[in-house]
Amino acid sequence: MKDFEITARCGKARAGTLVTPHGVIETPVFMPVGTQASIKGVPHDMLNCPVILSNAYYLYLKPGFEILKNFGGLHKFMNWNNAILTDSGGFQIFSLSSLFKIRKNGVEFRSKFDGSKHFLTPEEAVSFQFEIGSDMVMSLDRCMKYPSHRADINRAVDTTCSWAEKGLNASKRYETGQKLFAITQGGTFSDMRRECTERLMEHPFFGFAVGGLGVGEPLGLRQQHLAENLDMLPEDKPRYVMGMGPAPEIWDTVEMGADMMDCVLPTRNGRNAQAFTFSGKLNLRNNRFRNDPLPIDPSCGCAACSRYSRGYIHHLFNVREMLAQTLTSLHNISFMIDLTLVIQNSIKNGTFPEEKKKFMKNWKGGN
Amino acid sequence: MKDFEITARCGKARAGTLVTPHGVIETPVFMPVGTQASIKGVPHDMLNCPVILSNAYYLYLKPGFEILKNFGGLHKFMNWNNAILTDSGGFQIFSLSSLFKIRKNGVEFRSKFDGSKHFLTPEEAVSFQFEIGSDMVMSLDRCMKYPSHRADINRAVDTTCSWAEKGLNASKRYETGQKLFAITQGGTFSDMRRECTERLMEHPFFGFAVGGLGVGEPLGLRQQHLAENLDMLPEDKPRYVMGMGPAPEIWDTVEMGADMMDCVLPTRNGRNAQAFTFSGKLNLRNNRFRNDPLPIDPSCGCAACSRYSRGYIHHLFNVREMLAQTLTSLHNISFMIDLTLVIQNSIKNGTFPEEKKKFMKNWKGGN
Repeated sequence: MKDFEITARCGKARAGTLVTPHGVIETPVFMPVGTQASIKGVPHDMLNCPVILSNAYYLYLKPGFEILKNFGGLHKFMNWNNAILTDSGGFQIFSLSSLFKIRKNGVEFRSKFDGSKHFLTPEEAVSFQFEIGSDMVMSLDRCMKYPSHRADINRAVDTTCSWAEKGLNASKRYETGQKLFAITQGGTFSDMRRECTERLMEHPFFGFAVGGLGVGEPLGLRQQHLAENLDMLPEDKPRYVMGMGPAPEIWDTVEMGADMMDCVLPTRNGRNAQAFTFSGKLNLRNNRFRNDPLPIDPSCGCAACSRYSRGYIHHLFNVREMLAQTLTSLHNISFMIDLTLVIQNSIKNGTFPEEKKKFMKNWKGGN
Repeated sequence: MKDFEITARCGKARAGTLVTPHGVIETPVFMPVGTQASIKGVPHDMLNCPVILSNAYYLYLKPGFEILKNFGGLHKFMNWNNAILTDSGGFQIFSLSSLFKIRKNGVEFRSKFDGSKHFLTPEEAVSFQFEIGSDMVMSLDRCMKYPSHRADINRAVDTTCSWAEKGLNASKRYETGQKLFAITQGGTFSDMRRECTERLMEHPFFGFAVGGLGVGEPLGLRQQHLAENLDMLPEDKPRYVMGMGPAPEIWDTVEMGADMMDCVLPTRNGRNAQAFTFSGKLNLRNNRFRNDPLPIDPSCGCAACSRYSRGYIHHLFNVREMLAQTLTSLHNISFMIDLTLVIQNSIKNGTFPEEKKKFMKNWKGGN
């Protein structure tokens, strides 16, 4: 078995398998977000999914390298035995640090927690992730806001490519089966994205992530550049679209040829009483659910849907019990995982377009 | 099997069995508190305990009688198949309603949620609990703050006895195996407590609860009246001490002859990072736990201790992840349940005094 293999195609959509040190992942895959070594509101032992996301920037600050090493790595620290992908935290360094400085050989930034000063090289960003046992490691990248000047994007592309290469060199001493991904940048300039992508493709990264989108640009522009950028990537390597979330966009993104996606919406919206179903979104605070004996989604087998009704969860939101957020977040993640199973099957069966159409119709019907 | 049977004694401490429509409960028993049909922060399907508490005052207001009936009762509403004891809410009516009026045939009060006006008779308070399927029902009582004038306590005793009798009459049409308890009042006046208790004992209540303590009186006074009041109660009926919580007081209370106890401390303190162990209390926010690979209590088999370390839970509190509160609350409840198992066994083995002494020594050692 190769570490990444495409097993079926339908148009540009691909289904495949990705081998990690912590299990085989069927793609396309949705990865729930556990930024700080916990999926917000959800005991992760209640989840059945092959891979979750965590964030190196947060973990680097808290609990920090030494503690994670003492515990034998992130998996043992949080007691999670399936795969973990860690984002490098490039995005957070730029979005959370009001004080950061790009230096020739790395980035100087302040902690979001206590303002303490840190300096991180692209080599350290990658080594950190390898050392804590991440199955899929992201290169340190330079992400820019939208809109940005062409000259600034150009510089960010240069930095991103140089850092990715340095990270790759740092990764060579790990013969552990852990995978390194490069992240493409280039903002909404097609030629910059092409330049960045082609420069990164010269190096033997295991996979590529499309970064630098979802930073303020209109959805149309985002989708255009996402599609273009995915087309530039090699057929035989996994493609990860970062921070891509609402269910319809998952279909769109897979249709463009993406293999991996993550998003905080299932838990963020779940904490706010919005539940996802194959018939659309439900606001569980709505009074019409107060007497509803059905589970959130009658077709769902998750730990919330197999035990609790909409009426009960409505009550829990109504009286502000934490269990409301736990159950709805748990369900939403299960929904996203079920959704990718539907998508995988539709690719294998060659029915992706029909299944997408059917999904979209039902999704809108529920609103 | 009788519905309540004492199976062992050690001094005044008793071990026994209590039969409910939802299973047999071994006593002494600790009952976790799920006031609003949820145990704060804890998915109740993760708990293994024979009985939980809920509160008729809260349930009466939200979700209300109609919804609970539509769902087929409280058990089905919250998907809990073991026993439920409901407090009548007498305590809440007086402690939460700034506007309440005692009428000849009931109490007029305002909702804590929306200020809406309600009138509840003692018959309705009992019927409500029977109708929603509570296994153990509490009479409506009149609870007074400490200190109160003797004349006011006297009136409260009169009201409590009269309401209990009315509730008992209302309960007669239910031949369902559900159990009705009367609640004793009398403040810190021994003769008032005796009068109240003896008047209540003239009627065939299934069991008796000691109420009106823990309302501001010093601990010594509380323990004195608790001991006195428990001595007045019939040997062959279950005795419930309301709102009795910290582990050392559980030992004291059982030693005085109590069979049932409840307390919000396991979840309230758990949400605040305080964990209970047989070696005392731990503050999991303390930095000394940051590298600690042990579970909260190495001797505990709960879902938190079998999976997660103090170091991980410390991290979760440190970064304000909800899972911290869930795991610590879950453990604390499991601890209280394990504690009552230790107590039960010590009664059966005739080693209660030694076991109590040993527990107290270890408990203090941990502080």
